[in-house]
Amino acid sequence: MIKFYTLKTSGNAQKVRMALCFLGLEHEEIVLVGEAQKQPAFLALNPLGLVPVIVDGDFVLRDSLAILVYLASAYNSWQWDGTTAQEKGRIAQWLAFASGEIKAGPTRLRASRLFNIAIDQVAAQSATMRVLGVLQDRLADRHWLECDRLTIADIACSPYLALAHQGGVDLAAYPAIVQWTQRLAGLPNFPAMEGWPTR
Amino acid sequence: MIKFYTLKTSGNAQKVRMALCFLGLEHEEIVLVGEAQKQPAFLALNPLGLVPVIVDGDFVLRDSLAILVYLASAYNSWQWDGTTAQEKGRIAQWLAFASGEIKAGPTRLRASRLFNIAIDQVAAQSATMRVLGVLQDRLADRHWLECDRLTIADIACSPYLALAHQGGVDLAAYPAIVQWTQRLAGLPNFPAMEGWPTR
Repeated sequence: MIKFYTLKTSGNAQKVRMALCFLGLEHEEIVLVGEAQKQPAFLALNPLGLVPVIVDGDFVLRDSLAILVYLASAYNSWQWDGTTAQEKGRIAQWLAFASGEIKAGPTRLRASRLFNIAIDQVAAQSATMRVLGVLQDRLADRHWLECDRLTIADIACSPYLALAHQGGVDLAAYPAIVQWTQRLAGLPNFPAMEGWPTR
Repeated sequence: MIKFYTLKTSGNAQKVRMALCFLGLEHEEIVLVGEAQKQPAFLALNPLGLVPVIVDGDFVLRDSLAILVYLASAYNSWQWDGTTAQEKGRIAQWLAFASGEIKAGPTRLRASRLFNIAIDQVAAQSATMRVLGVLQDRLADRHWLECDRLTIADIACSPYLALAHQGGVDLAAYPAIVQWTQRLAGLPNFPAMEGWPTR
């Protein structure tokens, strides 16, 4: 059984949870509390001291996006990570968008509000506007970011948009983004997360 | 022929240049100057206004790491992106390390010095120390980050370490990192870059 280390509020952990649940993989979720991320027992699994981490047999892997790449390759038969070089490249482009712009924008605004972390508000607002513009344009006439099907691009990019309201971001002007997060929440075995609106 | 948009000082562009040259792919390098990254002609290729971008036939792709994934899949026969799910996951973990910790650390310190950009120096120094510790440990007893061979993990992670001295980072206490950047510079067809020490 896959062990899965998480925090209750982590959008990155939700990416992994979605993949595990959509794939129907048996797993045990270990919810860290307090300072457990920075304690030796956890640092032995991830020296960076961050969830999510999975342990699959004797294979240990950190980072939500790397875990998505692994799960797609190891367990997925619907080619979540792309079947051609162009699909693989385009999907990787969205993974970079998740770890770059989305992290710099809506993720940071949410961290600022929920955890009272000091951030550069102007930079985070500006990144958020870029993120919203790019995603609304992209999703205006399609259901999924790439390949006309669910891929790890959608799983990587959606959580911090679904949770963006917790950072004070209003999605009213971005209906395609709202519908996309609801579409994901409507998939079989979607794992509910506090704060992810379902309708 | 692949068109490759770059900036002279960009370590991210160097990642793509290394992949193109190591693979022996014919390409035309288009070096942007001044504010060209933010002009409509370039924004049509990448709405985020950032190099590198490649155009391969009618296929346009942005982001250095996504381009590495594409080139490895499209043109590489030595399995630079991993042959098993575990290799793919571990390589993706290093790509995330490049876009996360390395960007937050040595990349930012260099940008601060070279381009006079205001940054949180304490946070960037702290991220840099984490990066140096993780890489020195990893490379102390191996030549390459994963798979005992050159992969896109090395190409993604090495440029901003080789260039770290431009951000005031002293690598004297990290010999395995220095040797690794020199090992890369010694590979056939390595494209020289101003600031990348070769011995």
